Amino acid sequence: MDFGTEFKPLTVQPQEIEGLSFQMITEELGGHDFSAEQYPVVQRIIHASADFELGRSLVFHPRAIEAGITAILQGMPVIADVRMVEAGIAKERIQRYGGEVRVHISDPDVIEEAKALDLTRAIVATRKACAAAPGGIYVIGNAPTALLELIRLIKEGTARPGLVIGMPVGFVSAAESKDELRKLDIPYITNTGRKGGSTIVVAAVNALSLLADRQAEGK
Amino acid sequence: MDFGTEFKPLTVQPQEIEGLSFQMITEELGGHDFSAEQYPVVQRIIHASADFELGRSLVFHPRAIEAGITAILQGMPVIADVRMVEAGIAKERIQRYGGEVRVHISDPDVIEEAKALDLTRAIVATRKACAAAPGGIYVIGNAPTALLELIRLIKEGTARPGLVIGMPVGFVSAAESKDELRKLDIPYITNTGRKGGSTIVVAAVNALSLLADRQAEGK
Repeated sequence: MDFGTEFKPLTVQPQEIEGLSFQMITEELGGHDFSAEQYPVVQRIIHASADFELGRSLVFHPRAIEAGITAILQGMPVIADVRMVEAGIAKERIQRYGGEVRVHISDPDVIEEAKALDLTRAIVATRKACAAAPGGIYVIGNAPTALLELIRLIKEGTARPGLVIGMPVGFVSAAESKDELRKLDIPYITNTGRKGGSTIVVAAVNALSLLADRQAEGK
Repeated sequence: MDFGTEFKPLTVQPQEIEGLSFQMITEELGGHDFSAEQYPVVQRIIHASADFELGRSLVFHPRAIEAGITAILQGMPVIADVRMVEAGIAKERIQRYGGEVRVHISDPDVIEEAKALDLTRAIVATRKACAAAPGGIYVIGNAPTALLELIRLIKEGTARPGLVIGMPVGFVSAAESKDELRKLDIPYITNTGRKGGSTIVVAAVNALSLLADRQAEGK
């Protein structure tokens, strides 16, 4: 490759790059069992990971997409488990309907209480979020303890999330926490196995808010 | 699983979870060709992705680890391609030696110039970063156009990065941009193929700053 000073990549527009990528994903993925309404989320997660195995491991509660769109359009807060997730979410599409993105993992009171109770900050942050917004959209890409605590609060009746996007990544308790999530009859988007992470859950939220925009525009 | 109100996960300390995860990674990875100084970066990337294929695809310039540690200890700025990367980097370990984490993708002047020149914001942000800090640590997990522009500036002699961590993810130009990076004789950490992303490059930076701390402490 030779870069002159006048170098300009052939495809410089993010929209063009995205369109071409999505076309490649659909071609390479081939046959699958996802519904037409679930597929945009699958596609955006594969786009963010370049990982078809991860894409195929996704599991949707039957009401997940509809519930997620409704929650966004109703202005429910989006609760992120860590700052990276908060940073990646397209906030203008959440704020448009009155929602906001929250993250409590670094709140001074959360840090203090976690030390006092000898619990992870993720657990204490989840408790704080549920006390303030039991019906929010919960987005967990990292801490299995956050997801397990949320599941406990749901079973207890304290939390009634509009949607749970639960895909913690890792070797200890991550897959197990997702197995527990799939036993619940509440709207969730998750996957099987160890993979997941901030970029994956962000892709799911951003795919849903695009669908919400489309619904709001009556398309 | 039955969560009583007294529920406490068995391993609640992040340090314990991390130690156990690292042990599992070493056991499952088995044989590999990474050096002892490269391995902590490989391990942390597998920890962040649960993806051994991605771990095995990593490629290190022979001077990468030493150059990265030196750059951190000298307080060179860390330039992130997007806000998610900035959010994930353990800033206290960069600031300890006088460095800071910068991200220019959403700067108003970058947005304006990108529109005026019909280029991606990633290209314009890379130009701005190199003008201010030609010797910084460049961390690119997303835009292939940012990496290609950085390579052009390096060839031109305008940029002389202390280290390039270049692992853009995606279907269009991502693998190709990394192929170009590997042709340079400068300190880099990259991989082959389409995978990469914010969480991956963040893991690399955070592994390096831990190594820098260890070196500073004379361990």
